[in-house]
Amino acid sequence: MSNSIGKKLVVTSFGESHGKCIGVVVDGFPAGYKIDLDNIQKEMDRRRPGQSNITTSRKEEDKVEVISGLLNGVSTGAPICMLVWNKDVDSSKYDELRWTPRPGHADYTAEIRFGGYQDYRGGGRFSGRNTAGLVMAGSLAKELLKELDIEVLAYTSKIGDVEAPEITFDEIRDFTESNVVRCPHKDTAEITLNLLEKIRDEGDSIGGQVRAIALNVPPGIGNPVFGNLEGELSKMFYSIPAVKAVEFGAGVGHAEMRGSESNDEFLLEKGKIITKSNNCGGIQGGITNGMPITCIITFKATPSISKPQQTVNIEGMMPCTVEIKGRHDPCIVPRAVPVVESAMALVLADYLLEAGHIKQFKEADK
Amino acid sequence: MSNSIGKKLVVTSFGESHGKCIGVVVDGFPAGYKIDLDNIQKEMDRRRPGQSNITTSRKEEDKVEVISGLLNGVSTGAPICMLVWNKDVDSSKYDELRWTPRPGHADYTAEIRFGGYQDYRGGGRFSGRNTAGLVMAGSLAKELLKELDIEVLAYTSKIGDVEAPEITFDEIRDFTESNVVRCPHKDTAEITLNLLEKIRDEGDSIGGQVRAIALNVPPGIGNPVFGNLEGELSKMFYSIPAVKAVEFGAGVGHAEMRGSESNDEFLLEKGKIITKSNNCGGIQGGITNGMPITCIITFKATPSISKPQQTVNIEGMMPCTVEIKGRHDPCIVPRAVPVVESAMALVLADYLLEAGHIKQFKEADK
Amino acid sequence: MSNSIGKKLVVTSFGESHGKCIGVVVDGFPAGYKIDLDNIQKEMDRRRPGQSNITTSRKEEDKVEVISGLLNGVSTGAPICMLVWNKDVDSSKYDELRWTPRPGHADYTAEIRFGGYQDYRGGGRFSGRNTAGLVMAGSLAKELLKELDIEVLAYTSKIGDVEAPEITFDEIRDFTESNVVRCPHKDTAEITLNLLEKIRDEGDSIGGQVRAIALNVPPGIGNPVFGNLEGELSKMFYSIPAVKAVEFGAGVGHAEMRGSESNDEFLLEKGKIITKSNNCGGIQGGITNGMPITCIITFKATPSISKPQQTVNIEGMMPCTVEIKGRHDPCIVPRAVPVVESAMALVLADYLLEAGHIKQFKEADK
Amino acid sequence: MSNSIGKKLVVTSFGESHGKCIGVVVDGFPAGYKIDLDNIQKEMDRRRPGQSNITTSRKEEDKVEVISGLLNGVSTGAPICMLVWNKDVDSSKYDELRWTPRPGHADYTAEIRFGGYQDYRGGGRFSGRNTAGLVMAGSLAKELLKELDIEVLAYTSKIGDVEAPEITFDEIRDFTESNVVRCPHKDTAEITLNLLEKIRDEGDSIGGQVRAIALNVPPGIGNPVFGNLEGELSKMFYSIPAVKAVEFGAGVGHAEMRGSESNDEFLLEKGKIITKSNNCGGIQGGITNGMPITCIITFKATPSISKPQQTVNIEGMMPCTVEIKGRHDPCIVPRAVPVVESAMALVLADYLLEAGHIKQFKEADK
Repeated sequence: MSNSIGKKLVVTSFGESHGKCIGVVVDGFPAGYKIDLDNIQKEMDRRRPGQSNITTSRKEEDKVEVISGLLNGVSTGAPICMLVWNKDVDSSKYDELRWTPRPGHADYTAEIRFGGYQDYRGGGRFSGRNTAGLVMAGSLAKELLKELDIEVLAYTSKIGDVEAPEITFDEIRDFTESNVVRCPHKDTAEITLNLLEKIRDEGDSIGGQVRAIALNVPPGIGNPVFGNLEGELSKMFYSIPAVKAVEFGAGVGHAEMRGSESNDEFLLEKGKIITKSNNCGGIQGGITNGMPITCIITFKATPSISKPQQTVNIEGMMPCTVEIKGRHDPCIVPRAVPVVESAMALVLADYLLEAGHIKQFKEADK
Repeated sequence: MSNSIGKKLVVTSFGESHGKCIGVVVDGFPAGYKIDLDNIQKEMDRRRPGQSNITTSRKEEDKVEVISGLLNGVSTGAPICMLVWNKDVDSSKYDELRWTPRPGHADYTAEIRFGGYQDYRGGGRFSGRNTAGLVMAGSLAKELLKELDIEVLAYTSKIGDVEAPEITFDEIRDFTESNVVRCPHKDTAEITLNLLEKIRDEGDSIGGQVRAIALNVPPGIGNPVFGNLEGELSKMFYSIPAVKAVEFGAGVGHAEMRGSESNDEFLLEKGKIITKSNNCGGIQGGITNGMPITCIITFKATPSISKPQQTVNIEGMMPCTVEIKGRHDPCIVPRAVPVVESAMALVLADYLLEAGHIKQFKEADK
Repeated sequence: MSNSIGKKLVVTSFGESHGKCIGVVVDGFPAGYKIDLDNIQKEMDRRRPGQSNITTSRKEEDKVEVISGLLNGVSTGAPICMLVWNKDVDSSKYDELRWTPRPGHADYTAEIRFGGYQDYRGGGRFSGRNTAGLVMAGSLAKELLKELDIEVLAYTSKIGDVEAPEITFDEIRDFTESNVVRCPHKDTAEITLNLLEKIRDEGDSIGGQVRAIALNVPPGIGNPVFGNLEGELSKMFYSIPAVKAVEFGAGVGHAEMRGSESNDEFLLEKGKIITKSNNCGGIQGGITNGMPITCIITFKATPSISKPQQTVNIEGMMPCTVEIKGRHDPCIVPRAVPVVESAMALVLADYLLEAGHIKQFKEADK
Repeated sequence: MSNSIGKKLVVTSFGESHGKCIGVVVDGFPAGYKIDLDNIQKEMDRRRPGQSNITTSRKEEDKVEVISGLLNGVSTGAPICMLVWNKDVDSSKYDELRWTPRPGHADYTAEIRFGGYQDYRGGGRFSGRNTAGLVMAGSLAKELLKELDIEVLAYTSKIGDVEAPEITFDEIRDFTESNVVRCPHKDTAEITLNLLEKIRDEGDSIGGQVRAIALNVPPGIGNPVFGNLEGELSKMFYSIPAVKAVEFGAGVGHAEMRGSESNDEFLLEKGKIITKSNNCGGIQGGITNGMPITCIITFKATPSISKPQQTVNIEGMMPCTVEIKGRHDPCIVPRAVPVVESAMALVLADYLLEAGHIKQFKEADK
């Protein structure tokens, strides 16, 4: 069941980069929610290729079509199937790459796993394009979270060695979408943009990090042992292509911290229990403590680069060289921001449904 | 289903730190395998409390008892239930801590999640003691991996700011168990041991990292999208208390790498496809490429420290101070090494069963 | 996850009777299988409304569209999404039925379950029309079974008190499709057809039974306890609307049998172990014994009848009467035959994948 | 995962008939419930062997031991592991049966499924003794149902051709335990008892039926399509050894009923919607309608009979004869009554948890 995820809110993904469509079925979505398709489209537009000069030039409108689960725009409790049709498909380059797995890509592992039958065009099932499904599903999840005043924020926190300084939630809200890098810190954004243009012109690519935050999640969400929240968030994040590290709170920094530094002391604030610091990233023992959930997701560089690279012709089992033409993002991080938000929203909505914070259907307004 | 994990090899965990026992049921283990209980016990002894002067002084023999699933020491295909009985339980300190959640611990989140009914003694279900179940199950999984010549290695790679230099697989095999820190690099081990003794004497604690490696895993194991190997490994690792970051290959380092650096070029070696570098940690597109699987797991400092810390009395909703006495590890990393190995072995065995590399029962030797 | 089923071959269903489409995603289908769309269409045509004078007159072409998972007509290992678009939708009658739940239908229970937000048009998610998804998925499963020479047969064995006598497998193969009742016994078919026409003219409906058989399933497929084959088959059959009983082998007849009668003695036939009788229906201890798997599925009468029936107006909470016009089958059994076959094929394919009889991808022909 | 069942209330079963114990882990049981061990023991005593002259003479005290999940007798939200130790094990007869599969038993199918490694002693994992786990788990579930005033009743409704007439709920409550047959209709019980004694003396056995009823289940519990209530109940019932048919409401009788007869018309009774008849057995479209849930479960005759039977020596592949000595029930139905109740209680509790009727923890009494 490698194409489904979730317990109460189950997301099933289908489609290929150069197939007919990218689609998703969301099962377990509660009944009675008015779905604003414009909101979903807005999220999709943030993820869309061709949105700026530092993204691939593939032109996809990515117009979302809902083909089940709604009645007069309101969720019915039935599975919601959503699609975007692939339109600007150019598979011409992939035939010549058929037997020369591209370094950094999944071409070789796909070949072994699926016995050579995989849809190899445009990365097929392994393409970042599949995250379109995640964003459609995640946008639905966000609608549920909104009802509970939960907010999910994400932004580009680092690309190469350019890292944004600490920043307020309001700055993230206000400035993330103000630039194509999706970095709310203006100076960092500018430096990064220059870096990305340079790298693009060199035919190279680069990695980076997205920082994600969920605000206002009630305490008590999650489980000890195997059902812990970090584990599920992490599993979901790793389903996004190119993710190579997932950290919570102080993350890898914990290795160098003493207990007397890293322990988050409890305080009372207006009769509510909060913690003084938030090194645990809002999760203790796999369960939320009511503080912001914070995580950092590291993406490796886009593997498609035009520089010549060594590989092996797997048909003839001979070494050879590959140069990758075509349309590619010099860095996937800016477009990954809405994907990370969606991933986070889906996991949280799943837990909130399980914990009973969201019911099977919306109570009618009185 | 927060206490079960796995698809084909399903691990169900039960027990509490100060309850009667810690137990585990392993379902889906194939029939026909001679189980060497001494091997399981050896792994348990590596995890056992009281094994050195830098671990808690709680004395538990942790003698493994198998109560189902074997016939004459051979697996039958039925679920295997294994137990260790808790013997050296001292819950006296926990009654006075009942209403004052310890910073860095799960006391507060457990209280909210379980409405105050949780077994709060010794951390109950949240205690690191529950990883005894993981090790029992993981030791079984290692038996399966052995048949396929797959090896799982782990060691203490960093504690505080003391980090081991790069090291060979042979050194890991030969020297990890040569010191109580479980660091195969002798000098690093010595410095770390001094650091840990100092920290213990100060009543403080510290975090660190375990590096884990799986050798000889065949290529083609894993899935794209939601069933990817990194996601499952990561989810399993996050079920170990105190884990706050999980990285694969170059991990967080990917943020600063260019595609031309991070892409792992393909080479032929003795007619086999390998990669020149291994920045992807042996996993591309969620699927193994036949290279070593490498990951780094970051643990936060043990939260139990004897220094006074601020907290809130949740009964009276009043700020107060807590000092934690009792028996604690200054750093959990050395004892976490076998736990990480077990976690990794379990996930790999699950995938190998699913992919048909391990059959439902062992063919009889001819 | 009420709209997905299966472990290795996971079927996710979506769509509504009067929505845009009925669809299905089949995940876990192995790579490398040439899919004959004509075969799928042929199965769909057996299920299609409007195929005879004893089925509803709703006209749906039910032309299957595959929108993912195939490359040049061959399975890629990616999830296969298949759709039929609803065309002949007439929802006019459903608005007046909105507040008067039809006896025997799911209108009332859907109202409670989904808080009134369910798609009530044409039964929405509860309609037998959703079995179109089951047939699309089941037709794929049959392709897998064919490779193992496994055959699934089903036929109308009883409608009202008219029951077919015992019949050979060859007769089932040859004559089931020879009449619109799908009863391979000619005389029984004729009597039943007359009965159905009479009942249709009276504005009434009637129940019946489908007998299903799987031939050539290897022994050893299934599990003891919760993963037993009867349980999964039964669960799948109960997902077909109107099913009210599921029996295996001698079924309810076992209540009156003695062990000396019902025990199936073992014999040797051409060096193979078979059983003399087959009262267990080919399944012992939840596992196949290599004999034909036989089951009987009982369907209740189609609840839509034009005779006046008592019900309650749930808006005003007042008793009232309802007469159901519209297009309905006097008996669902003839159209249920391919649905039952599909259900059986799906469960068997799932187990055969799990047991390793079907691999992750098809070995290339040498 | 053939040894676990359930979504929110997950039951994992382990143990063998002649192994050390029979055990069960119940995960997802909500926190805060006082568990009355006497109630669990009472249920176990109803299932216990050796309870009368028409049950096997194996003497097992079946004293329930809870080894996790409770604190001071109250559920903590952690998994509850319960055990009975096997004491009166006599495996002597099973060595001589090792290669001669007993007709009607799972010996042959187990051999194929587990490659000969299965625990063959006393039926091992296939033995009815494993239902001890179901009863322990089911007794817990009943505690939850009690809080919602839901009652599960079951009784012996038919053995051989002796069938109890229709009977009131009060009679079931009052008289089921008044005789060893567990038939609340006195005359039927007497005739049946004579029949069973005669059959026992003849060295034969017989089948029968249990009728099960759940009262006061709220409407709206269940799902359409794959998550329907009949499917889950049925799957659970089929996990009880010897079950060969599962019917709901009028069951197989539906085959002969017209829609005008079988449709359950809606009525108002004291402002509540009820149905006039209950042919659907309280479930419409896979969802409860608030009426009693009724089902009939058919058990085949106990396969162990002392009459000589034909079988095959699978070691030498030679036909031979087997006579089964040992201790056996002439009919399993009387002891199956509490097992069926438990199975039903577990499924209902699972759905009620999922639907939010039971919360994650019990609200403290004010």
